[in-house]
Amino acid sequence: MTATSLQDCEALDRQDPLRELRDRFDLPDGVIYLDGNSLGALPRATPRRVAEAVERGWGRGLIKSWNAEGWAGLPRTVGDKIARLIGAGPGEVVAADSTSVNLYKVLFAAIRLAATASPQRRIILSERGNFSTDLYIAESLCQQHGYTLKLVAPGDLQLALDGDVAVLMLTQVNFRTGAMHDMPSLTARAHAQGALAVWDLAHSAGAVPVDVHGAQADFAVGCGYKYLNGGPGSPAYVWVHPQHVNRVAQPLSGWWSHSAPFAFAAGYEPATGIDRYLAGSPPILSLVALDCGLDTLLSAEPLGGMAALRRKSLALTEMFMGLVRERLSGHGLGIVTPEEQSRRGSQVCLTRDEGGYAIVQALMARGVIGDFRVGDGQQQPDILRFGFAPLYVRFVDVWNAVEQLRQVLDRGEWRDARFAQPKPVT
Amino acid sequence: MTATSLQDCEALDRQDPLRELRDRFDLPDGVIYLDGNSLGALPRATPRRVAEAVERGWGRGLIKSWNAEGWAGLPRTVGDKIARLIGAGPGEVVAADSTSVNLYKVLFAAIRLAATASPQRRIILSERGNFSTDLYIAESLCQQHGYTLKLVAPGDLQLALDGDVAVLMLTQVNFRTGAMHDMPSLTARAHAQGALAVWDLAHSAGAVPVDVHGAQADFAVGCGYKYLNGGPGSPAYVWVHPQHVNRVAQPLSGWWSHSAPFAFAAGYEPATGIDRYLAGSPPILSLVALDCGLDTLLSAEPLGGMAALRRKSLALTEMFMGLVRERLSGHGLGIVTPEEQSRRGSQVCLTRDEGGYAIVQALMARGVIGDFRVGDGQQQPDILRFGFAPLYVRFVDVWNAVEQLRQVLDRGEWRDARFAQPKPVT
Repeated sequence: MTATSLQDCEALDRQDPLRELRDRFDLPDGVIYLDGNSLGALPRATPRRVAEAVERGWGRGLIKSWNAEGWAGLPRTVGDKIARLIGAGPGEVVAADSTSVNLYKVLFAAIRLAATASPQRRIILSERGNFSTDLYIAESLCQQHGYTLKLVAPGDLQLALDGDVAVLMLTQVNFRTGAMHDMPSLTARAHAQGALAVWDLAHSAGAVPVDVHGAQADFAVGCGYKYLNGGPGSPAYVWVHPQHVNRVAQPLSGWWSHSAPFAFAAGYEPATGIDRYLAGSPPILSLVALDCGLDTLLSAEPLGGMAALRRKSLALTEMFMGLVRERLSGHGLGIVTPEEQSRRGSQVCLTRDEGGYAIVQALMARGVIGDFRVGDGQQQPDILRFGFAPLYVRFVDVWNAVEQLRQVLDRGEWRDARFAQPKPVT
Repeated sequence: MTATSLQDCEALDRQDPLRELRDRFDLPDGVIYLDGNSLGALPRATPRRVAEAVERGWGRGLIKSWNAEGWAGLPRTVGDKIARLIGAGPGEVVAADSTSVNLYKVLFAAIRLAATASPQRRIILSERGNFSTDLYIAESLCQQHGYTLKLVAPGDLQLALDGDVAVLMLTQVNFRTGAMHDMPSLTARAHAQGALAVWDLAHSAGAVPVDVHGAQADFAVGCGYKYLNGGPGSPAYVWVHPQHVNRVAQPLSGWWSHSAPFAFAAGYEPATGIDRYLAGSPPILSLVALDCGLDTLLSAEPLGGMAALRRKSLALTEMFMGLVRERLSGHGLGIVTPEEQSRRGSQVCLTRDEGGYAIVQALMARGVIGDFRVGDGQQQPDILRFGFAPLYVRFVDVWNAVEQLRQVLDRGEWRDARFAQPKPVT
């Protein structure tokens, strides 16, 4: 489906069964926001919710609010809302810490579990282009525990999943290409080979229907500040399959992960269930904002929920790719995001031999916000990245973004010195 | 100094050079808040600062605010303010994660460093009554790396610091007794024996002048939500002596700890300096609240700063202990907090053979907020804990709190069923 005019897009927006959801966000005038995959937009309900936590919860209730306002239970309350987006059950998810820290917990646990079954396996397998923090955390654990981090191209994962692999660690949707892995199939292959599967849902949960139980995943982590609209640096989350959760302790054994945190008991005893994946006190103000972001996302449930959001997301990304091909041909743009619907997330990533950074800057000056992801000069090209959060991006935004991009390219506007990429500090 | 009347206390408040600081806090009417050592009170400036971060920073600025609002630098900006309270230099502290998570980072680094000098040392030494999360984190690292956590009574620490100790790990002010360690002396003893010293400043920084360089400490962590008034579950902080900071990588090697986080480079390379103690994205809304809490605390600098705050804190705690002895004798209360000024922090901890929990509840019903810390039935008694945050606690509050406690005890009010301690879930 490619729209042929702005009017077509306006018609699609009028017919969009999710159109009312955009009103739940406070978006700046004159901005086309295509970076919700980096920082989700502000829900209209959030300022008041946060202000209440500050003024009533903290200011009036003081220490009593840990109970009276439900703060102590918030990692689970928020976790239960996330569970509904990823196919997990109630009580299986906690919101806590950052994605990096949570990945450390689950990857450590996965290594331990894998070693109980087959201690000779010493490989953690991942994708070469996985998000950097995932690879860095895996490096640290490999170095500490005598494992090797093996990185391959996405197409080589099935083959690389052999009997030496202890843990397969992947991000479902790649941050740089928008390509989506087949989570059930890769997990099944991992299990068939005797390995465990750890999934990072940062770029999928909230934009793509995820089913951790359906895929028989072992562990998952994810991010609160992208499609969950939790706000800048919002807490992340962690899910562990119930069959594993009580079999091993995670290493960040802070008091909140203890079976009785307020007993101040001598000796660590991990909590039963997912609470053992907590560590220290949760940042309540940020967690309240995440709770509100989730309420906003879950308000799509009566309108069809994640399935409806996914349909719209696919229509948006497909239209964007179509318009780029039709209206921007001859400008040297490549599309690295897969055509095939089942193989892409909710973003479209473009490449260009020259000027990627400047083009993104020139677009921002025109009110179209995407982002630039630098390549490595070898296998990974520079990326112009556009995210299509189906909660608030409209079809007219797609049309207008492509039109703005066309003007930036037609006029060579990106060559203006003010858009030049700063030289790296050496 | 013991005041003999409410009028004396009123006079002391009038003469208090710090009296204007209380106006910077939004305290509920009718409440005497003696729990700032658990959750600091709300600064009046905080609601607006947080609202601006939500509405202008997130809502209007969206992704651009990571640079335009200085969010990306906030861990260091906030860290530099904390540095002024603990005798650290600019660029030596970052605000990040929780105390538990930060302790994991520094204790791991301390073990690694100690092992490079003397790999045969396999003991982490601490105090038996140290805060539970510190001990749990140490347990995890001991179990992973083949160390033993040795716990002794505070008076036995100097003797226990022998040539087998790799790392001394202590909380400067004990959460349960208010007793303060001699940080320079214990650190010097540790160094003389070839061990490193890790200090948790959760109950001291912001209430007691701390000087990590003066004490020649090696590593320190601390908490943002107590005397720093950063709000519920506020991010914590970490300091590493500049002589150590680049010698070892910490294990939670998330992208924010990388030398070039946004290069998404293959291969982990830790940042130079304290940034390598970051991990994932910081929770900005909570961090903004901490920044504001620190501004409020640092507004005491023209009035004498930490030295003046300490003078007032000692006067408050001394008066409280004096009044408890004089006006509450015969009620079976014990005082476990040291008399000697140099040996106590900013809280006073009482014991009673019976009814501790109920007494704290009865006091709360009368608007006097302290807290109860359960003992272990053996070495650690139950504690009635009263914190005296010198920024906002007045001398009349001390008088009135003791008077309320007297009435609760005289009238046996705490025996009322509504104040009974819930039975533990078994």
